[in-house]
Amino acid sequence: VGKRAIGIDLGGTDIKAGVVDDQGKILCKISIPTQVAEGRTAIIRNVASAANLARRKGGFAWRQISAIGLGAPGVVEYPSGIVRHNPNLQCLLGQELLQPVMDELDVVGMSMTLDNDANMAAYAEAWIGVGKGRDTLALMTLGTGIGGGLILNGDIWRGAWGAGAELGHHVLFPDGVKCGCGSHGCLEMYGSATALVRRFLETVASGKRSPLATRARKGAEVGARDIDKAAKSGDKLCRNLIEETGRFLGIGAANMFNILNVEMVVFAGGMTASGKMLLDAIRAEAKKRTIPVAMKGAKILFSKLGNDAGLIGAAGYALKQARARKRN
Amino acid sequence: VGKRAIGIDLGGTDIKAGVVDDQGKILCKISIPTQVAEGRTAIIRNVASAANLARRKGGFAWRQISAIGLGAPGVVEYPSGIVRHNPNLQCLLGQELLQPVMDELDVVGMSMTLDNDANMAAYAEAWIGVGKGRDTLALMTLGTGIGGGLILNGDIWRGAWGAGAELGHHVLFPDGVKCGCGSHGCLEMYGSATALVRRFLETVASGKRSPLATRARKGAEVGARDIDKAAKSGDKLCRNLIEETGRFLGIGAANMFNILNVEMVVFAGGMTASGKMLLDAIRAEAKKRTIPVAMKGAKILFSKLGNDAGLIGAAGYALKQARARKRN
Repeated sequence: VGKRAIGIDLGGTDIKAGVVDDQGKILCKISIPTQVAEGRTAIIRNVASAANLARRKGGFAWRQISAIGLGAPGVVEYPSGIVRHNPNLQCLLGQELLQPVMDELDVVGMSMTLDNDANMAAYAEAWIGVGKGRDTLALMTLGTGIGGGLILNGDIWRGAWGAGAELGHHVLFPDGVKCGCGSHGCLEMYGSATALVRRFLETVASGKRSPLATRARKGAEVGARDIDKAAKSGDKLCRNLIEETGRFLGIGAANMFNILNVEMVVFAGGMTASGKMLLDAIRAEAKKRTIPVAMKGAKILFSKLGNDAGLIGAAGYALKQARARKRN
Repeated sequence: VGKRAIGIDLGGTDIKAGVVDDQGKILCKISIPTQVAEGRTAIIRNVASAANLARRKGGFAWRQISAIGLGAPGVVEYPSGIVRHNPNLQCLLGQELLQPVMDELDVVGMSMTLDNDANMAAYAEAWIGVGKGRDTLALMTLGTGIGGGLILNGDIWRGAWGAGAELGHHVLFPDGVKCGCGSHGCLEMYGSATALVRRFLETVASGKRSPLATRARKGAEVGARDIDKAAKSGDKLCRNLIEETGRFLGIGAANMFNILNVEMVVFAGGMTASGKMLLDAIRAEAKKRTIPVAMKGAKILFSKLGNDAGLIGAAGYALKQARARKRN
């Protein structure tokens, strides 16, 4: 097995792809629109194009690429490879994704690996990120929802049927807000960026006042970034909401420590831009709720790989899988 | 490695020990008091005695025994082997348990294994119990507290420092009842036998009426078994409380399915005597809250090994460890 792989991160808006070396260094990368509205065939063609564009941008021939890794949102059922439970790319539901992409690429003998995008990001963290050298970690990506990845014994934990590590869908408030998954009160409904905006609007509607609340009342569209900016500029209401998000996520982290005794919980995604204000709140809450022996030595950190975690992890995991296949 | 091991289940009241063959069959077993009040040295001596008594009861010489497995409550820190977080046997805290027992037994070359009692019970279920042939399962023992064990990839999941699978200490109600572990609203505070009695007494105090409530008001001591009996005799209040316990445990099971995609969640311990009434409530709630792909094919069952699960698992796991040591 060689030293380079193409990593692809298939998102609801963009497809990111890059050639990554065996140290996790990105040699070149590109990004193209997913074109969700054009349906499944277009997405498959675009995923294949992204791989080719990244390869050509770096000037690599196919023989210089050892493997391709693809991270996709949703559950990739095991061993069928069929995409399940994928709210953002519904047109892929109930279908295989890997084989059509391989057919479209039509490269003989290429080792290809598909997994959930957050699983790939978790692998990147354990490989070259803040979890480098750790054998067990949990990762949660804080965005529209909360994606989850688990690394146990140095490998991605897929579970019995590929649905492992849906960490955003463990229950925080049994009688809480209805979740898209069918349950109520999932962590995702309290700790995601979407949840932050919802809670802000609820607070505004309840009559609480603050500079950003005033702007919202006058009709301004408010996103998670606006709430973060306002909090950093001294808007106490916004700061409280972000710290409350931290408490919710801290409970989620404590649950990971108590259930699994992982060495580390890593948070990724746009909301980590809130920095220390959010991280301190997460850590304080987790410490209160974790059994001391599981907390001792455990770490809670924000990812530093940013938007590249998915493609780096996909490439790294594809290389690992290619090596394993060669051995067997 | 031979075909027989001694399994020991160290509890707060009794020490159970038995000789178990490599099919999980108990050849003979004994039970002696733990004598917690007499302190650590007495407990260690009693554990060693239990092993010897079981062996002699079956007429086995030490050379006919291949390994000894010991299941103990609390967290066994890894790799130090020091007992941590053990509310029921506090005199063992901060101390090694395995080496003193080995010294007391003084049998040369015996392979000995110590682990958390619920981990051992989980191993028994995956080995010869309701989870036979399953690679991944979660077990919760419903008693004074809720003990937890996880089998992942066919092996006990110990976590980074031995604190893995404290399943009773994941948060169900963030602002709920204070738990002995320091957190609030842990599953243990809602789904255990102790919690059932507390919730019954709270309900009685709030003025709700039922046959058992009347007896309690007249001063009768009420335990979890009385509530179960009353429910089965038509006491609706008691039945509702048991079904509510089922809903709490169903959420706990759903969390295991969504976080880990285990194939099965097994419940054990005295409360499973409530049977169908409890199991149906658990299953209904778990189904509502589990992502379909993680639920499909998944099972929720009550253990059938009863009080022997701990010692069977301890023996089986000791045999497995002895084989692994021989290979290395």
